[in-house]
Amino acid sequence: MAHTATSDDIRRVVETIEDMGYEARPMPGKQRTAVGLVGNDGRVDSSRLEALPGVLQVIHVTQPYKQVSREWRPEPTVIDLPNGTRIGAEDVVLMAGPCSVESEEQILAIAHRLRVAGATVLRGGAFKPRTSPYSFQGLGVKGLELLARAREETGLAIVTEALEPETVELVADYADIIQIGARNMQNYPLLKRAGRVGKPVLLKRGLAATIKELLLSAEYIVSEGNGQVILCERGVRSFDDHTRNMLDLTAIPVVHALSHLPIIADPSHGTGLRSKVIPMGRAAVAAGADGLMIEVHPDPDHALSDGAQSLWPDQFDELVAQIRLIAEAIGRQLASPLPERVPA
Amino acid sequence: MAHTATSDDIRRVVETIEDMGYEARPMPGKQRTAVGLVGNDGRVDSSRLEALPGVLQVIHVTQPYKQVSREWRPEPTVIDLPNGTRIGAEDVVLMAGPCSVESEEQILAIAHRLRVAGATVLRGGAFKPRTSPYSFQGLGVKGLELLARAREETGLAIVTEALEPETVELVADYADIIQIGARNMQNYPLLKRAGRVGKPVLLKRGLAATIKELLLSAEYIVSEGNGQVILCERGVRSFDDHTRNMLDLTAIPVVHALSHLPIIADPSHGTGLRSKVIPMGRAAVAAGADGLMIEVHPDPDHALSDGAQSLWPDQFDELVAQIRLIAEAIGRQLASPLPERVPA
Amino acid sequence: MAHTATSDDIRRVVETIEDMGYEARPMPGKQRTAVGLVGNDGRVDSSRLEALPGVLQVIHVTQPYKQVSREWRPEPTVIDLPNGTRIGAEDVVLMAGPCSVESEEQILAIAHRLRVAGATVLRGGAFKPRTSPYSFQGLGVKGLELLARAREETGLAIVTEALEPETVELVADYADIIQIGARNMQNYPLLKRAGRVGKPVLLKRGLAATIKELLLSAEYIVSEGNGQVILCERGVRSFDDHTRNMLDLTAIPVVHALSHLPIIADPSHGTGLRSKVIPMGRAAVAAGADGLMIEVHPDPDHALSDGAQSLWPDQFDELVAQIRLIAEAIGRQLASPLPERVPA
Amino acid sequence: MAHTATSDDIRRVVETIEDMGYEARPMPGKQRTAVGLVGNDGRVDSSRLEALPGVLQVIHVTQPYKQVSREWRPEPTVIDLPNGTRIGAEDVVLMAGPCSVESEEQILAIAHRLRVAGATVLRGGAFKPRTSPYSFQGLGVKGLELLARAREETGLAIVTEALEPETVELVADYADIIQIGARNMQNYPLLKRAGRVGKPVLLKRGLAATIKELLLSAEYIVSEGNGQVILCERGVRSFDDHTRNMLDLTAIPVVHALSHLPIIADPSHGTGLRSKVIPMGRAAVAAGADGLMIEVHPDPDHALSDGAQSLWPDQFDELVAQIRLIAEAIGRQLASPLPERVPA
Repeated sequence: MAHTATSDDIRRVVETIEDMGYEARPMPGKQRTAVGLVGNDGRVDSSRLEALPGVLQVIHVTQPYKQVSREWRPEPTVIDLPNGTRIGAEDVVLMAGPCSVESEEQILAIAHRLRVAGATVLRGGAFKPRTSPYSFQGLGVKGLELLARAREETGLAIVTEALEPETVELVADYADIIQIGARNMQNYPLLKRAGRVGKPVLLKRGLAATIKELLLSAEYIVSEGNGQVILCERGVRSFDDHTRNMLDLTAIPVVHALSHLPIIADPSHGTGLRSKVIPMGRAAVAAGADGLMIEVHPDPDHALSDGAQSLWPDQFDELVAQIRLIAEAIGRQLASPLPERVPA
Repeated sequence: MAHTATSDDIRRVVETIEDMGYEARPMPGKQRTAVGLVGNDGRVDSSRLEALPGVLQVIHVTQPYKQVSREWRPEPTVIDLPNGTRIGAEDVVLMAGPCSVESEEQILAIAHRLRVAGATVLRGGAFKPRTSPYSFQGLGVKGLELLARAREETGLAIVTEALEPETVELVADYADIIQIGARNMQNYPLLKRAGRVGKPVLLKRGLAATIKELLLSAEYIVSEGNGQVILCERGVRSFDDHTRNMLDLTAIPVVHALSHLPIIADPSHGTGLRSKVIPMGRAAVAAGADGLMIEVHPDPDHALSDGAQSLWPDQFDELVAQIRLIAEAIGRQLASPLPERVPA
Repeated sequence: MAHTATSDDIRRVVETIEDMGYEARPMPGKQRTAVGLVGNDGRVDSSRLEALPGVLQVIHVTQPYKQVSREWRPEPTVIDLPNGTRIGAEDVVLMAGPCSVESEEQILAIAHRLRVAGATVLRGGAFKPRTSPYSFQGLGVKGLELLARAREETGLAIVTEALEPETVELVADYADIIQIGARNMQNYPLLKRAGRVGKPVLLKRGLAATIKELLLSAEYIVSEGNGQVILCERGVRSFDDHTRNMLDLTAIPVVHALSHLPIIADPSHGTGLRSKVIPMGRAAVAAGADGLMIEVHPDPDHALSDGAQSLWPDQFDELVAQIRLIAEAIGRQLASPLPERVPA
Repeated sequence: MAHTATSDDIRRVVETIEDMGYEARPMPGKQRTAVGLVGNDGRVDSSRLEALPGVLQVIHVTQPYKQVSREWRPEPTVIDLPNGTRIGAEDVVLMAGPCSVESEEQILAIAHRLRVAGATVLRGGAFKPRTSPYSFQGLGVKGLELLARAREETGLAIVTEALEPETVELVADYADIIQIGARNMQNYPLLKRAGRVGKPVLLKRGLAATIKELLLSAEYIVSEGNGQVILCERGVRSFDDHTRNMLDLTAIPVVHALSHLPIIADPSHGTGLRSKVIPMGRAAVAAGADGLMIEVHPDPDHALSDGAQSLWPDQFDELVAQIRLIAEAIGRQLASPLPERVPA
């Protein structure tokens, strides 16, 4: 309460809290009175209180998320993919691939190359969210089919994005992990639908989302019954244009402290420039990321999207060699590469 | 090109530009060579160029949006609603109402009150996007029906939010203006669907969206054939927590310079606190806003959402009286209040 | 305290608080224990507490500033200048002039013009902080002398910037108001020196300063014994480059609620572009600003600095005419113009 | 130029460029004309051009800094300290110590401990910039003397902050490296004075400074004749309060690409919380930092400032062990520890 709050003001706050179904505890101090609200489960809508006369500030002590919180479940969530990849355990997992699936030749070539390099998950967009309506929007279902074909040939698991609630099931039919992109982090109908499908979900942090909001969006998925959520730091908006986004690597230890969910980093979108992907990929692993998502293209100069931030396959090899040592320096290890598949 | 770029580097850039279907114009200077890309229509995907050797920077001279641009259509877009309200002309339009439709009694009471006060458009959420899955999510279709009832009784036009592509047509059946919320500014399937329905669309600026991105999202709607788009500044993310968001009123004259679309301001979400709504509503009109969207609730202390930023009806009267004079000070005027409806 | 804090953790927090000289009040709740720290005067350095085991969060209930706070002094501070200008009362005060003093001819010409237009304070930089070491750095003492000459001829009061502690007294010898620029908002030796000189101080908000930090910097000046502080909103950093800075006009009602100090707005720096100065100057007055600081140059195309954001004198007339009406619309008025001085 | 610019508009721009002493090159395109400004050295003040009629945008192709740029000096700057420490070469350098010098006992104890742990530079504030005037402001000259004493006993080089131009020489008498803090990054009189003293300067990035502005501030120092500048990333302002600042590690490879100056990271201020210092210190080295600056206190719970972000000495040992391996993983190495000094 403000220093100038009257006893009537305080009484009104107490009554409002009780009217909301909680218990009010006034605590008179030297200069002002604080009023505690207890008996809640962390989901209080404080807007009724904030504008009452004499109220200086409403402070939330309990976080509004619950099921994703490490306070309530101390052991880490580990997600097992059909090809043996485990996300959230000791292994550092490599997800790699082109921004968009462009053709059968492209996706198969890069998939084989990435399996050899040590990736165990293949990324590739079939439905693409593009800032401009005039940019390439992805191959759609055809892209999903090509991803499935690449999985069949290489054993790589598939992660690809779902853009709208109606197509979540369709994407889930093909993908091992359903990606929710940064622009859709607060697309609640999409989150709910993803929460009802039995596949792991990769949830990217929004461009201006706080960690708290990221965890609340994860809570949307988990509260629908799907606990297999992987978070992803991919850079946030900043005042500086030296990179496309500002990669907030501190989010990694922060999420690990607040939540039991795994978190990976995407330095490709997080920096937007090829020459920064290797150092920031290394930094993310050093900060404790449970994996990396890296854009790699067989020929970035001719990519239909995001060419400037895609690594050449040889650069990906270089990155893998370096992060292998960094993972070991902090007591972890790269996930084992998948064996070659012998055609039947 | 970098100061150190070789002639091979320059040749490769020229070839890439030509390969992309444009014309390349190298311009050698004292210290470095610039290479112009001409013959394009403003929609160039520069990612292939950015990472070529010797490239220092890719600079976009032409804006990537087109149909929403004032350069290409100098006269302002004016949107006519069935009840006579004109948005984008001389009138300053008042949209007001509760955050959420809560009950028939609530929405009818406030609608009658707002008509008398001078509003011509009624706002009210039926489908609510909430940060927490545990918050009130709106009355849904029942809310739409109550809004239609309020229109029938008062003559107020209706603006309400559509959250997902599947329900755009449903919302359009009831609403005079379909609102796309800030969290959905880059929900492209939703934008496209809104572009195919024959109703005006109110597009709110995303929490970390640049003006350029706002206009590109509007371009999504317009490029589907729906030119009736109203933009809305409602505050962006900032480093300071003294208000919920930072209301960027300069966006108003900036949008007016870049685009022919009307733009209104929402000081309720833009500040998040009742006591700041009146001064910032005045400021928005003084900055040239084509209208205001204001949260007003018959009893804010008992609102199910956003109570702390909702005005009491008497405060709305006070705001209207002040902005009437401010509108006149800059050569505009408040839209005329609607007449009372005589029940048949 | 965290949900998982042990009784030992709580005891250690209590002991630390007592060791710091305050009283500790543990408040056990259903899920966790909170520990109140009371008996302080709002200046607690909480860093010792934040990292103790079991501590989830340290929440400051009392603001760390005091003398500038409206809680402790409800009536507004009004600053009286020798020429009769009153800042912080009903009058809206106009400060105007060129970015830099460039020559006698320039400053006298614009000063006479501005007096007629209705300004009562003349701005003009003699010592200029420039981002690049290669830009024009101001005329120095010669500039101060020219400002004094302009005051003598026109009666306008003078506001000009001090850049370093050593020259505060020198600037105070010539100026009626000493300006502390945005880049120096946390230059504490400069603030302290300005606090010891008997002249009003205009303190500009830093590019990334919160309102709380702005008030703490003002507290530095006031705590040295100088209560004549005028705050100035001049735009903050943002992610969008459509204007040079983002003018945070909501800071005006926020400061008025938290502090008794007057606050003006500088839409010239706040937008960085001439065409946005008029609408944003109007908006600032509508938001309740106690004055405006506007860059006006007799010939902006040939200005040595900031030409692009300087108004032509005729544009300033247009702005004055509009804000006169806006000030009246909210129950204030423009300060009366100064009479012409008859040379002795 | 705008699409709508007339030939008169273009002529006026050409004349203005020529009037400024440069050469103008109009380049007519399909939709608009661009006008190139050539013959400049990268220091053009474009404000005269920005507001001319018909001008859509002024684009700077050449960076405004020069002497600090890698384009003009490809080989890295290496700074040699008297105790053999080399900054900017293969070695990763460890600077560590308390936030503030508090007492002889404190600073000597921690200095001996840090030498053994592998640090070669001792940090410690004698003059402290504090947000609140009521916080501890440092021991002043007494603090400098204690730092010199610690150097004598341990061989560690000393880095400490200068707050005002008048005391730069005083600080330089004691310190091996003069620190310019984040709040003073654009305190130009201070930068200039530091540029005239013959000691290396550690320049911290301001809270909202772009990389370009950081390099321009370094240019202030270098242009006064002092090329021994070390840059430091220490976190910037962001919209999220989960850490005190957002540590922008991408700044490290960005600075290495743009400039020949070394850059270190300060994860203590960059995160503000002890538990995040180790992961982010590791990440900074993995990203390519030339060194780390770490706050270590013999007893953080009783530190007079910044206790919550200070490591315990044993935690520093743990950090050193991990970054030793990470440095090797990327082809670098930790600087060799200093030998024990045998008292004469």
